[in-house]
Order: sequence, then C-alpha cells, then structure tokens
Amino acid sequence: MARPRHLRGLGMCVAAALLASFLAGFIMGWFIKPFKEKTTSARYHQSMQWKLLSEMKAENIRSFLRSFTKLPHLAGTEQNLLLAKKIQTQWKKFGLDSSNLVYYDVLLSYPNETNANYVSVVDQHGVEIFKTSYLEPPPDGYDNVTNIVPPYNAFSAHGMPEGELVYVNYARTEDFFKLERKMRINCTGKIVIARYGKIFRGNKVKNAMLAGATGIILYSDPADYFAPEVQPYPKGWNLPGTVAQRGNVLNLNGAGDPLTPGYPAKEYTFRLNVEEGVGIPSIPVHPIGYNDAEILLSHLGGTAPPDESWKGTLNVSYNIGPGFIGSDYSRKVRMHVNNINKITRIYNVIGTIRGSIEPDRYVILGGHRDSWVFGGIDPTTGTAVLQEIAQSFGKLISGGWRPRRTIIFASWDAEEFGLLGSTEWAEENAKMLQERSIAYINSDSSIEGNYTLRVDCTPLLYQLVYKVAREISSPDDGFESRSLYESWLEKDPSPENKDYPRINKLGSGSDFEAYFQRLGIASGRARYTKNRKTDKYSSYPVYHTIYETFELVENFYDPTFKKQLSVAQLRGALVYELADSTIIPFNIQDYGKALRNYAASIFNLSKKHDQQLRSYGVSFDSLFSAVKNFSEAASDFHRRLTEVDLNNPIAVRIMNDQLMLLERAFIDPLGLPGRQFYRHIIFAPSSHNKYAGESFPGIYDAMFDIENRADPRLAWTEVKKHISIAAFTIQAAAGTLKDVL
Amino acid sequence: MARPRHLRGLGMCVAAALLASFLAGFIMGWFIKPFKEKTTSARYHQSMQWKLLSEMKAENIRSFLRSFTKLPHLAGTEQNLLLAKKIQTQWKKFGLDSSNLVYYDVLLSYPNETNANYVSVVDQHGVEIFKTSYLEPPPDGYDNVTNIVPPYNAFSAHGMPEGELVYVNYARTEDFFKLERKMRINCTGKIVIARYGKIFRGNKVKNAMLAGATGIILYSDPADYFAPEVQPYPKGWNLPGTVAQRGNVLNLNGAGDPLTPGYPAKEYTFRLNVEEGVGIPSIPVHPIGYNDAEILLSHLGGTAPPDESWKGTLNVSYNIGPGFIGSDYSRKVRMHVNNINKITRIYNVIGTIRGSIEPDRYVILGGHRDSWVFGGIDPTTGTAVLQEIAQSFGKLISGGWRPRRTIIFASWDAEEFGLLGSTEWAEENAKMLQERSIAYINSDSSIEGNYTLRVDCTPLLYQLVYKVAREISSPDDGFESRSLYESWLEKDPSPENKDYPRINKLGSGSDFEAYFQRLGIASGRARYTKNRKTDKYSSYPVYHTIYETFELVENFYDPTFKKQLSVAQLRGALVYELADSTIIPFNIQDYGKALRNYAASIFNLSKKHDQQLRSYGVSFDSLFSAVKNFSEAASDFHRRLTEVDLNNPIAVRIMNDQLMLLERAFIDPLGLPGRQFYRHIIFAPSSHNKYAGESFPGIYDAMFDIENRADPRLAWTEVKKHISIAAFTIQAAAGTLKDVL
Repeated sequence: MARPRHLRGLGMCVAAALLASFLAGFIMGWFIKPFKEKTTSARYHQSMQWKLLSEMKAENIRSFLRSFTKLPHLAGTEQNLLLAKKIQTQWKKFGLDSSNLVYYDVLLSYPNETNANYVSVVDQHGVEIFKTSYLEPPPDGYDNVTNIVPPYNAFSAHGMPEGELVYVNYARTEDFFKLERKMRINCTGKIVIARYGKIFRGNKVKNAMLAGATGIILYSDPADYFAPEVQPYPKGWNLPGTVAQRGNVLNLNGAGDPLTPGYPAKEYTFRLNVEEGVGIPSIPVHPIGYNDAEILLSHLGGTAPPDESWKGTLNVSYNIGPGFIGSDYSRKVRMHVNNINKITRIYNVIGTIRGSIEPDRYVILGGHRDSWVFGGIDPTTGTAVLQEIAQSFGKLISGGWRPRRTIIFASWDAEEFGLLGSTEWAEENAKMLQERSIAYINSDSSIEGNYTLRVDCTPLLYQLVYKVAREISSPDDGFESRSLYESWLEKDPSPENKDYPRINKLGSGSDFEAYFQRLGIASGRARYTKNRKTDKYSSYPVYHTIYETFELVENFYDPTFKKQLSVAQLRGALVYELADSTIIPFNIQDYGKALRNYAASIFNLSKKHDQQLRSYGVSFDSLFSAVKNFSEAASDFHRRLTEVDLNNPIAVRIMNDQLMLLERAFIDPLGLPGRQFYRHIIFAPSSHNKYAGESFPGIYDAMFDIENRADPRLAWTEVKKHISIAAFTIQAAAGTLKDVL
Repeated sequence: MARPRHLRGLGMCVAAALLASFLAGFIMGWFIKPFKEKTTSARYHQSMQWKLLSEMKAENIRSFLRSFTKLPHLAGTEQNLLLAKKIQTQWKKFGLDSSNLVYYDVLLSYPNETNANYVSVVDQHGVEIFKTSYLEPPPDGYDNVTNIVPPYNAFSAHGMPEGELVYVNYARTEDFFKLERKMRINCTGKIVIARYGKIFRGNKVKNAMLAGATGIILYSDPADYFAPEVQPYPKGWNLPGTVAQRGNVLNLNGAGDPLTPGYPAKEYTFRLNVEEGVGIPSIPVHPIGYNDAEILLSHLGGTAPPDESWKGTLNVSYNIGPGFIGSDYSRKVRMHVNNINKITRIYNVIGTIRGSIEPDRYVILGGHRDSWVFGGIDPTTGTAVLQEIAQSFGKLISGGWRPRRTIIFASWDAEEFGLLGSTEWAEENAKMLQERSIAYINSDSSIEGNYTLRVDCTPLLYQLVYKVAREISSPDDGFESRSLYESWLEKDPSPENKDYPRINKLGSGSDFEAYFQRLGIASGRARYTKNRKTDKYSSYPVYHTIYETFELVENFYDPTFKKQLSVAQLRGALVYELADSTIIPFNIQDYGKALRNYAASIFNLSKKHDQQLRSYGVSFDSLFSAVKNFSEAASDFHRRLTEVDLNNPIAVRIMNDQLMLLERAFIDPLGLPGRQFYRHIIFAPSSHNKYAGESFPGIYDAMFDIENRADPRLAWTEVKKHISIAAFTIQAAAGTLKDVL
C-alpha cells in the first residue's frame, strides 16, 4: 500500500532534516572537540597555588617540629632510622605516589664512648693540671635523654699532640698570612686555637694543617656567639660558656662519602682506605666552650694581637703566643682526641608525586633529617617545613590534582657529616638527574634569625622568587597587610639594585651542593635570617649545641611559627611553579645580567695588577664578549618564548628542554683545579670558606695572592687559562639557546 | 489549528529522529576527528626511504671521487680550503638548509721544505754512506702536480739521533716484552726500526719511547703490504718498494688539538706550549719504503729473530741487532727529522637539514675531507659517498619531504693529524651534542677492500644495520639478486652467532671517536673490506702513499663503483631511519647481550689468575648482577615501547629521550685512568692499539700484564676498583630505562 503523497513529501523532508541534523551534529562534534589536549588553564594553575599555600598551617609546622625534636637524631643511629621510617609512613599517608628508604654505607666519625675527648694543660712534669669539660649541661626537661653525643669535630684525626699554643684568630687564610708574613710567627709543631665563625670550620683546619700545626682547638668566642643584651639559654637565645659547637672538619670539595668519591657508597662499591679518604684532616681537632677557652687563652704570652680585629670579648689579652706567659711558660697544651671512623649505614627517604604530563621531568625538594643533638633549628625547622609542604601537596593530590612534572621529596641523612646522603643519592642517580631535573630546592633550617628573608639561588630563579614572595603574606610585625616581598625589600634591599631585595650567590654548606655545583641543576634555598646590619654574631649562637631545642624556637625565634610558615609557603610555591607551569619559569636574561656583574667584578679585582696584566698580555676581552653574546642569545630566546605555540606539546618541550639544560651548560666535566667535583664554572664554594659562593672561581683562585707566587709568568698564564675557560663556557651556554645549531 | 494527532506523533518522532541524527553526527564527528596530529604514516616513511636509496647513483659517486682527487688536499693548505668551499657550495645547491665553514686554529706538523727528512748509515768517520729517498715517484698523469708532501710522520720530534739499530718487529707491547724480558735486549739509546701494521703507528712510537729508544724508523714490509700474485701499482694494487706510508704518530687519547685539550681551538682559547702538547712524541720518527728498509736491515747483526712471527718477506735475516754485522759493526744509523709544528687554520664544512617535528634532535653524518696526498681511497671514497648522500637527501627535500629530526652533514678537516676537525667541533658544541644527538654515522673511506661489508658500531645499532642491509642489493658478483645482508652474512658470519653477520666493536682511528668515546653518542661506521680469512696484509697496501689515486679505485678496487654505492646506501639509510622514524630504531636488548658477552670474556681472562682472585678477594659478581639487571630493564623498556601511544607526542618523546640517552649513560665524567677523554666505560680504543676496540677497558687495563706488577695487592685493588665502576655504570644505565625514578 502506497503512503499518501503528502506523507511521502514529508518523508523526504524528514530524511533531509535528519541528514542536515546529522551533518550539523558532525560539524559541531568536529569543531567542539579540541585538536590538542588543553594545557591546564592559567587560572586553574593559579587557583591551585592559592589552595596549596592556604593548606599550609603554622600549627602543623609546630607539631612536626615538636614531634621530630624530642630525641637526638644523629646520622647512623637507630633513632635517626626510626625517624626516617616515621617520615616515610607520613608521606605515604599524605598520599605521595611512592615513599622509600634508600641506604648507603658511608664513613662516619664518632667520639670513642670509653675514651673521652678533651684538651688539657700539662705542667713541666707532664701532669694535667687542667682539663676541658666532656659534656654540656642538658637543658631542662631533657635530663633523662640518652644518646647525646658530646661536643666533637667529626673526622678529626685521633691523637694526643702536645705543644705550645698559638692563637690564630678565626684561622682564615688572611689570619695565617698576617701571622706568618707580618708577625713572623711559625705555627709548625704548635697547637693552634681558633675562634669559630666567619668561615666554615673545615677551612680553618686545612689552614692550620698548611701552617704546620699539630692540632687545632676550636672555640666560640662571645664576640661571635653572644649578642648584646640577650640572656644565655634557657633564659634567652645566647650561648652559655659551657657548651660547644659540634661539626665536621672535612675538606671534601663535593666528594660525598670520603671513601667512594664519584660513586655511590653501595655494598659493591670500591672503597679507599681511610688513610686515603678524601678531605680527612691529618691532625686532631676539638671544639670547646668559651669558659674553657678563657682559661687556655688567659695564660697566653708571646706577641700581642696585631689589631682590634683579633680580639674577642673574653676577659683575656688575646696574646698570640706561642706558649704561656710568665711562670706558666713551661706548661704545654695537650689534646686528647679519640674519635672513631666507622662505615655506617645511612638512610634517605625519597618520595614522589608522579607528573601527569611529563613524569620524566623532576623538581626536587630536599632537606636533611640528621641532627647533632635535638636539631631544634638545624635541620628540624627545615624538616618540619618539608613535611608540611608534602602534606599540603598530598591534599591537592587527594582532590584529584596532579602536577605537570614529577615532584621528588627527599629527607637526606648525614648532612652533618659532609652532605653525605644527598651527595651519594646524586652520585647514584647522576645520569637521570642531569638529564631530567628542572630544579633543586633545599629545605635545611627554615630559620637562623627572625628578621627577614634570606635567599641564595641561581640567577635563573630570581624572578620566580620575587613573584612568589609577592604572593605570600609577610610574617613580620608591622607588615601585617603586606607581602613577604615588601617586608623583605624594605629590610634587605639588594646592594646592586635597591628596587629588588638582596639575593646571594650559592656557596655550599647544605645539600644543594651536589645538585648545583656538581650536576649543574638550577638550585635555590630560602630561610629567615637575622638583621645583617645590626647583628654581628656568627649564625645563631647555640648552633650545633645541645641547646638547639624545640623550646629555643618556640620561646625565642618563632613563637607563632609564622616565619617558618612563610618559608614553607615560599619553598612550596617555588616547587609548585617549577613543577606545574607549562613553561618553566626561569629567566635567562637575569643570568646575563649576573654574568655581566661578575665579569666586571673579577676584572676590577685584576686592575690592581695593571702592570702585570700588560706585561703578561692578560685580557678579559673574550670574557666580556662571551657575556655580551650570552645576553643577546638570552633576549632572543625569551622573545621566541613569547611566540611559542602553547598548544604544540613538542614546541613547548623543546623550549623547556633548553631552559632546563641552561644551568647544565655551565658545568665543565674537567672540574675546577684540584676540585674535580666542583664543576660549575660560574659559581663555586669559596676555596677559603666553603659556606660562601665565589663567582668565576677558576679565575678568582688563579689570581688569589698572585703577588706572592714564585713564578709570576706561570701564575698569570694560569689566569689566562681560566679566563679562556670561562669565556668558552659562557659562549657555549649561549650556543645552547640557539634555535637549531 | 491543531495538527492531526497522527501527525503530532510524527512530529515528535521526527524531532527525536533529528536529535538522534544530530547526536549520531556529533559522535561521529567527535570520534572521526583525530585527537592529535597524525604522525607520518609508516608507508610514507618506507616509500621515501626507497626513493632516497634509488636516488643514489654509482656514476655520481664516481664523478665526485674523480673531481675531489685531482689535487692533494693536505689539512691546513689552500687546496683543502678550496675543496671545503666547493663542498659548501654543492651542499647549498643540493638544497640543504644551511652550509657553513667552521674553522679552528690547531697544531699541525709539516716537513721542513728546505731541510728534507731522511735516514742514513754513517761510517766510523761520520760519513753518510747511505741515505733513504726523500720522495716517491709520482704516478702516471700526476707528474706536474705540486704540493705533494713527501712521506713523513706528523708530529715527530725533530732531531738527528744516531745509534745502533734494533729491529723490533711491529713494535707492539708484546714485541717489546719479548725483546726486554725474554731476549734481554735493551733499546735504551738505540734507534729502533719497526714494521708498519697490526697496530696504530702512534702506539709503536710510544712503545719505543718507553723502551728508551732515541728514534724510530717505520717501514712497510712486503709481508704486510704486498699480497701474493698481485702486481705493484700501477699494474696492480700492491705496494712498490719506493713509497712509504705517511701518518701522524700522536698519542692524543682523544684530546683533539694537542694544545687545547678539552676546549675548541678558537682565537681566544688558552694554548699549551708545544713542549706541553698532548701526546706529542719526544723522539724522531720517520717512515721509509721497503727498498730502503732492506738495505738497513740486511746489515743487522746481533741476535737472530726469536721465531717466524718476527720475519717479514724481505731478503734479509731479520736479525734483531743491536747494530750491524761483521765489517759494518762500527757503522751507525742516523735519522734526520726536521718537521715543523705550526698552529694552522683548518675548516670543517657543516650542513644541516632542519627537522620538521624535532629540530632539536640531531643525526650526524660526518667524514673527513683532508688527505695525505690525493686521498684516492682515504678519505675520498668516503667524501664522495657523503656527497652523494647529501645530494640524494636534497632531492627528497626539493620534493617537499623533510625528516622528523635535524640531519647534520660534516666534512671534517685534519683527521689525518689526530681527528682534529671533528674533535674540536665536538668540543665546541659538546653540551648541545650530548643533549640532542641521536647518533653519529661516520663517512671515512667507503672501501678498504672489495670482498664484503665491514661494520663497527654500538650494539644499539645492530638491528638497524641488519634491517637496512636487507633492503639494499648486494654489489657482489654471484649475489646479483640477493641483498647486501645475504652476501655479508655468507661471507663474514659473526663468530658468536652464525645467524648474523659479524659486527665489530668501535675502537678509534676515525672521526667518530669524540662522539662515541668522549660524548657517548651512539655511533657506527661501515665500509667494504677485504677477506679477513684469506687476505693477511695490513689495510690496503698503498694506504697513505702517493699511489692512493682515483685510478687505484677505478682500476682495481671498485671499477663499477657499486661497492661504494652499497656503502652510500647503507650509511644513507641509517641516517634516514634514525632521523625520520617516529621511535628511534635502537635495540637496547642487544646492548644487554653484548654486555653479557663482554662480562663473560673479561671474567674468562681473569680466570688464569684464579689463585690471585681468591687471595685478594676479587669478584665479578657485581658486574654480572648489574648486567642481568640491565637486560631485564631493557626487556621491560622494549615491552613498554610496544605499548606507547604513538599519537601522544610527549609520550613518544619521553621514550625517545631514554633511547637517545642510553649510550650517554655509559659515560663516566671521570674518564678512564690516564685517558680523561676516553670516558665510555664499556668501550675504548685499546691502550695497545688505538685502532682496536676494547670492552671493559678499565678492567682490562688493570689486569693487563698483572703478573709482572711490583705490588700485586695494589694491582688487584685496582682491578676491584674498575669492576666496581663498571658494575655501577651498567646499573645506573639500567636505572635510566626505568619509568620515572
């Protein structure tokens, strides 16, 4: 049966309409579907950053600090392993994708439990008529704590040297120059006594060895560890005379475990004999408090101190010696150091949050866990912050968020014994890390004072640090409604450009070292610090003593924990931005500016040898020319970066690879002279103070004290060589910013 | 007016149908549209490979060879600069995206034009009664060519040593061991004469220096350079007695320019003094032909040769000496070597084809252009092939094709003077190259014989070499319809596995060295070679003489140019596949197998010291365990590779980065002992013969001659150290194959 005609027409209409509708649908389907995966929107990225920062709580940091500082956590001890396991468990609970213990068997050094270290004065009959104290009086509430290691200097040689005492001020290079060259005092065969402060203690020991000393006593002078108008602990945060600063005295120059330089200290790893170990001093070293030091110093005779800069504030003359005065002249000083070196298992905790888009790109946040005693400030104000950052990222993860790149959390062991845990892990994973790491952010102590922010980082990170500091509230009194950036800028403007807060060069002295100085991974550290203009003491007075407790922080340094919260937010926001921004937030132009400043400054330093520069044909032109080329390449790169198609994942990755690898371009595989694991040509720990960063270290060291070299032609040839290496390295780094070749 | 009820129902049906149709259309539109850009189809990729190979013509290679061998092209000369410019121009004409000259100022060494080198016999009155010839008789048709450098050994010390002659066979390590330990012949103060062959001449010179010789004469014995039943050139390809092999005698160990180790020899680069230059011998060296050698050897007295292996086929006794026999006993040999070292500008030509998707990933095809004289075989059979490959890629480009990755063409200068052009360029661009290079394919001489294919390459490339060899026709008589792979397999099966053709380890002796041994870039080389079973002579007889001409190739080695075409197709196809495959065609499992073989072989070598292994606690367990872990990681990686979403560009890039960087994981920045620029832990040029590849060179060298070390405990400690380094390196390489961390 035929359908009615009007229905037939309708059928065709319907068919046409269906087709049209299908086509409309098809077209809409085609066009609505994105051609590419959407990159995370900038707004979502920003909102998750707010969420991350607002998850962080001062109260949580306080709880972590309280929990982690009840007992000592010396590297290599059961208690520190238990803390590692606790952190591992917490990270799992926070929701990290993995959380593992990674161990190494490294050389550690402990006092001999049955044969205490001390320093004595012996009379003409060899009788010890004075002995320094073995132990520090424990703080209130900690009387029953066991396993407190007495003050000692890890890796000191053992021995019982005896001799006349010489006071060598801070035992800096310039102090020994003054002693030897101006005052003509020979330290050969003497025991020297140096005050702590100004430089890394390992450099003091090395200087004493070079001067021929047979032992070195380190003490904390009140001039350096006792601030005016502050009570000693527990009434205030000043150093009492009865305690002494612990610390290792290695000159590792980045080697990590002294027995396995260059390689991770695993079971199968070849080990040097201890006598061949890298950087282990050949003389005994022992630290004492200023009560004991006063007794030793008060009898010193010999030459008077050369000037006021050699005087501390003890009630003594600060005579140099050698030897004692008057009727005490026949007395000698004898050191008893019985430390034991021992290959010991240490444990890092490594946690990860797997990146969603580029799991093979890493942002590392690492800080050490081991402490000399309770670690009240060092490192646990950093450990607590690390923990709160991990917890806050965990909360974001549990809400379904995931960073673009992988975040690695690291709780390092044995930092106090020479950055061992972090360096061994860097050695074990060197290839992966140098190929894949965007940045390393350090999380050691988050406070060393409570005045303002202190940041040391690669120039690549300057702008990012400024940016995130603007997004964090200032914790400072009087800056309630202002940003961290604003209070920081007001309190510590940069000496080069008052429009920005000061940022320092990276030196060493914490776990970023292997990542920055050896592998060339962009790195940074941030903490709260003292007022550099008014506070003249070195570090915080009770540093590395038994009085570094939770109460020290809660009663004096950061009662509200807001400074630590700000530091947590800053470190956390840096990690967040580095891990989740589509384009890695590095600024290469700032590196160009920094290079220009460093080049100008090393050139200025050379100008006092104007005559020699001309005689030996030393020119800095190639260096300046390379810096100029670098700056131009950086500008061109950033221009291209604004043009990159964010919807083209390979185009984005190519630019990001160049950004990631730029810091690596400053690494010279041949290393610096005599310091093969310091391979960054632009920065290195100063050869005279491991804590400080030196720019153009190759050139700087070649010119250092050049007026006193035996063969000036050879010395200036070495300068030329290092100018050439620096110029080449910068030129090559500029080359990596080019488009193709 | 209400529509009829049945029409109302129909309206709803139609509406529903329209909606359904729209939705169907939408869904189809959504799903039909590709989510990502399509990667080039496998079929298109294959068809372009066919096109590339079919573009290559024997006749073109012949023309290039003819054109490039009319004049000498010694490094540092105007003629070689002109050839560089010619090649640069041709590359532009072929359609490459860029083609540039890149210069370096390196130390070269030339004979003194006014003071010829020779060797003489002097009588008791100091009168020279015999002199070796200065020049080679030029080949027919080349009589009027100027600028032919006479036979000399570049970088020989200059000097006029005089003394008794000692015949030292090939001057290998084992030859000197026999002389010194078995025969008790002391070479101190003697002039030694060694036959060319078996090992790199630089090693001979080093051995002579270590033995205390004051000079060394190198000559080509007919036993090594004269094949039976072949006429001397020009009637055949054998070596006449009147010509001598040129060649440098440096022991650079990968340093490149002897005055700028580690850095490119640019204007601003710091240079060592020539006396400090890397690897420059301290004694005179001079090469002679066998006519002259016969005269020197015929008078030798002293000890008889220890066995047949010390005898060549000259009509002499092959007595060792020292000194002459009978009435000639008072005669001495005097060398006159007046070479001049000179910092000279050299030129590489660098051309590029920019990659379409990953312009920052490089496949490098490089070969040298400089020759000792005409370069008939070495290098111009390689230069011609390089040129034909570039031309064929150019044709593809002009048809609109473009490879996924960037291809770099390089015409190196001064290879003959120690791989200088290629090494300086590697030094200048080290950072970029190690971060971005997929592979380096060498294009030195494409023939050294006409029997079958010879390939030396990283295990990563085995499968790719086999694959492309299957796709190329065999040029061999009797294999007309078969593949290159089939003739190769039949003629030279692998000694380990008869199912595959032989592939050798990479040593050195050509420009891949810096790329493979220093930077760890996957590398390979391929050429036609002699029959290793029947042809016992060293290299091809007229190697590095004036008789290396176009006619030598056309008349004897490859009259049809089909062998060279096959080599061009093989090298070209490797470049093509590496540059254009979506997934880099490396096989990591083959590396695992190779490591297993090398580990077994070094372990077997150790077993003859079974007693010592036990006494000193030397174990290879960690090495075997690391190799096992590596193999497992490789299998797992290749499994994941089959699962990768080829439509996800970042996922593909992540896997490709791991493939690209795997070879890099075998690089130890600390280098091998005493050879800091040989940094590959799995392979190195043998310490006793630069040409040969040694596996596990650190362990091998530590065990070498260990039975004769003064302190066996120390020696075996060194072995343990290198086992540990090898185990760690392989373990770390396995680590880079892991998914995230």
